[in-house]
Amino acid sequence: MKIALAQLNFHVGNFSHNVNKINNAIGKAKQNKVDLIVFSELAVSGYPPRDFLEFNDFIDKCQSAVESIASECNDIAAIIGSPTRNPEFKGKALYNSAYFLAEGKIQDVVHKTLLPNYDIFDEYRYFEPNTVFKTIEFKGHKIALTICEDLWNIGNDPLYIVNPMDELAKQNPDLMINIAASPFDYNQPKRRKKILLQNVEKYKIPLFYVNHVGAQTELLFDGGSLVINKNSEVVDELKYFDEDFKVFDVDEIESKKFNKIHKTETEKIALIHDALVMGVRNYFEKLGFKKAILGLSGGIDSAVSHVIAARALSGENVRGILMPSKFSSLHSISDAKLLAENCNSPYDIISIEEIYKSYDQSLKPFFNDLPFNVAEENLQARARAMLLMALSNKFGYILLNTSNKSEAAVGYGTLYGDMCGGLSVIGDVYKSDVFRLAHYINKDKKIIPENTINKPPSAELRPNQKDSDSLPDYKILDEILYEYIEKRKGPQELIKMGFDVDFVKRVLKLVNTNEYKRYQTPPILRISPKAFGIGRRMPIVAKYLS
Amino acid sequence: MKIALAQLNFHVGNFSHNVNKINNAIGKAKQNKVDLIVFSELAVSGYPPRDFLEFNDFIDKCQSAVESIASECNDIAAIIGSPTRNPEFKGKALYNSAYFLAEGKIQDVVHKTLLPNYDIFDEYRYFEPNTVFKTIEFKGHKIALTICEDLWNIGNDPLYIVNPMDELAKQNPDLMINIAASPFDYNQPKRRKKILLQNVEKYKIPLFYVNHVGAQTELLFDGGSLVINKNSEVVDELKYFDEDFKVFDVDEIESKKFNKIHKTETEKIALIHDALVMGVRNYFEKLGFKKAILGLSGGIDSAVSHVIAARALSGENVRGILMPSKFSSLHSISDAKLLAENCNSPYDIISIEEIYKSYDQSLKPFFNDLPFNVAEENLQARARAMLLMALSNKFGYILLNTSNKSEAAVGYGTLYGDMCGGLSVIGDVYKSDVFRLAHYINKDKKIIPENTINKPPSAELRPNQKDSDSLPDYKILDEILYEYIEKRKGPQELIKMGFDVDFVKRVLKLVNTNEYKRYQTPPILRISPKAFGIGRRMPIVAKYLS
Repeated sequence: MKIALAQLNFHVGNFSHNVNKINNAIGKAKQNKVDLIVFSELAVSGYPPRDFLEFNDFIDKCQSAVESIASECNDIAAIIGSPTRNPEFKGKALYNSAYFLAEGKIQDVVHKTLLPNYDIFDEYRYFEPNTVFKTIEFKGHKIALTICEDLWNIGNDPLYIVNPMDELAKQNPDLMINIAASPFDYNQPKRRKKILLQNVEKYKIPLFYVNHVGAQTELLFDGGSLVINKNSEVVDELKYFDEDFKVFDVDEIESKKFNKIHKTETEKIALIHDALVMGVRNYFEKLGFKKAILGLSGGIDSAVSHVIAARALSGENVRGILMPSKFSSLHSISDAKLLAENCNSPYDIISIEEIYKSYDQSLKPFFNDLPFNVAEENLQARARAMLLMALSNKFGYILLNTSNKSEAAVGYGTLYGDMCGGLSVIGDVYKSDVFRLAHYINKDKKIIPENTINKPPSAELRPNQKDSDSLPDYKILDEILYEYIEKRKGPQELIKMGFDVDFVKRVLKLVNTNEYKRYQTPPILRISPKAFGIGRRMPIVAKYLS
Repeated sequence: MKIALAQLNFHVGNFSHNVNKINNAIGKAKQNKVDLIVFSELAVSGYPPRDFLEFNDFIDKCQSAVESIASECNDIAAIIGSPTRNPEFKGKALYNSAYFLAEGKIQDVVHKTLLPNYDIFDEYRYFEPNTVFKTIEFKGHKIALTICEDLWNIGNDPLYIVNPMDELAKQNPDLMINIAASPFDYNQPKRRKKILLQNVEKYKIPLFYVNHVGAQTELLFDGGSLVINKNSEVVDELKYFDEDFKVFDVDEIESKKFNKIHKTETEKIALIHDALVMGVRNYFEKLGFKKAILGLSGGIDSAVSHVIAARALSGENVRGILMPSKFSSLHSISDAKLLAENCNSPYDIISIEEIYKSYDQSLKPFFNDLPFNVAEENLQARARAMLLMALSNKFGYILLNTSNKSEAAVGYGTLYGDMCGGLSVIGDVYKSDVFRLAHYINKDKKIIPENTINKPPSAELRPNQKDSDSLPDYKILDEILYEYIEKRKGPQELIKMGFDVDFVKRVLKLVNTNEYKRYQTPPILRISPKAFGIGRRMPIVAKYLS
């Protein structure tokens, strides 16, 4: 039996686009004499459809899409993800399902049992968990068909009471198929492969795994679909961060010896780089935009963001705007220019001096000679944002936000100023990793000017300002932020780890009192296990460690 | 047996504040010879604690708080909500629990069975559902103790497979106690009472119900705790939108005849008004702010927002800023002035002309003589926002956002312009209801100038602009928005209802393509069953009805 894995980049709600992609893959599979083609989780709707699932019209369109795909399934079978209605009056209205299509119609459907409802996942918001377990018989094989999380309740700390593969194993299946939409973070490719291998080791039958690929607002899906034979050998992997299609023979995969070594790049910074490039590219493509604009300060955050955007959209489609003030250092302009030139990107220089003066004049009667403070600093950042948004509105760019995760965490940024943008490129990357990304980008050729990497970070909003005036060294700041945000360590645990008591108190207070700023930031491309955005849900009005 | 209901306004994560409130109520109950005092759901932590629940330190603090409260429970028993740890290795780490405290220590604990996970609720994100049912015996009574949603799976369309009261009823309890954090919307007081009455009618035992009160970021809790006797008579209700404390004798409530008529205001506009006033007041109090600033345009949205803020914070604490441009109508300034004067609020006039000119000059070389369009319109709105934020930063105000729900829905607002603010006052109120609110505010005394109410709405960003130039009549727009947003009707259903085909298409497209703007709006006080914010989760990158 020949099985094709179709790893495709779907577009939420874009049914004609998704169905076309699926039907093209079915056509290709037929040419390859494939018996069964497998698509990813919720393929017809795109993943995650979020609250569109609450619209009857949306579910109707999913149903129609499945029926139209089924009609293509002659001389071939297909497994495809779609939401389906729960026919019972009790429980949630929908299931997260996998259809088995053959002979031109729907032959069977199985539902997802384990519904992730943590971090960025909200599946129990929409779906009723499955409680009935049945294998699917096809061409002499008995298939245990599961959906994503269904294979993840393995190991010593199970999140769910049931384990669907334990139930299905009772029916003696001879192969596992899992359709997934497993979002990327820099630990995920390794962790995912480990979990999938654990399943094969436990159930001792081969696994065909198809993952979603592509970016969906802040979520990135890295693909890396794979086949593992019953000897726990990774037979093959599909591409990371791109669409792919491969055909496997169920019998042949057992008769060869394969290398267990991962063949893809799993080094953290390289993964982050590739994920961000895909994230920017898909955000623009799927929204129908071609060109980006961003403020180039001569600093490392805007430089790294610019290069990633240039790699995603092509350099000439990324316009850099240099907006010096009287506080800008001598190198700011020359560093920013050099970066733009290295990327073949257009750039312009617009001074904010006159605009700033007009605000100063208008506000003078109300500011009562109070000293220069954060109000004036923010005015500069906001004047820049207004210029960028004006160009964006005039010419149809998307403004890219260039804040990093360390700044976003401690609120070192101006709301409606440098926190503006349609998409945050590196908002999930700590400053220390932004430096690593810069070195990675420069590994073959100097693209980011050396001076941009080596000079001390500064917002340049007052004379001789440096980030280190008001923030601790990024290395130590990032360590504590990681322990607090990613690891949810409390103050006592942090102090026990050796961090200074006052410093811990100060950083945690900064993180928590700046929740109100993060509430209004653009979507942030998620590359870590705990990004700001839909996966981290905090009250603004609270008094805890603050 | 005497039972006290303590309806209190808790503060998320503010353990000392919450414990003090609780202990004060226990003291008061002891003076009143109360046998059992009942507090609301997750009282010790505040509701909802959201992802703070993922911090071990936070749960430790909840535990300590409960133990310290238990030590106050001599000669009195207490029921109090708190998260507790799940001792099993399987399943979610926590339960949403109700402690039974007596004789200075924890006597018993029951867990919530039905975990709401829709709209604004995320309880299955944190909590494992209860599966063990036991009543609590106290002073000759057998109490069926449940938590909020546990009583809501009644009626013809159950959302859950189990019904906890059906299980508890098997043990023949003689009274029900339910502790809740049931968020307000304008339908909720009526709906909640109906559900509670259905429970008493079904199980034929009295119900003591304690709800949370107060605002928590966007969520409003209206209180209205109540007692229903076994004859399904509402014995008494506690206050709406305020803290309250009342003592009841379990035997006496059965021996009297009570009026089934609701004694509180349930008229929609009055409820919205009171909810918004509480929402603004609590947002400021709980964040430690006293003063607000907002832009007064002379229009109805800023006028209604101003009055609500003035009622929440006192008129002199709300500063109105009038920021005319050359497009402002003659009446804008005089209407806005009159409004501020009627509220005893300070106001200032700052022209945006010079600022606008400085942008115009700076951008001229880049705009290539392209015609005046949305770029220039947005510049005006953003210049105003920058002035407001500068004053806000200088003097420590919170900027109030004055956008209404109709505008927010169709994207008729400028990101980083009039969409700025720390809190949106009327962002969940459709324009038609803003007019009703204005009339309600004016019912006894003319506070909002007649001209503000009667003139055609306009953003005044170009000559003689009116909302009706680019938007349909608000009456019909609001009807369709309500059907699409609150009722999740699709295009076919809307057309069947009689709405024009092209109009439906246009409005739905506006709603869906403006998701990116709403992603970055301030928290919106939630008064409807479907508000923009945490209860409506949409992808930005999608192609559905758009």
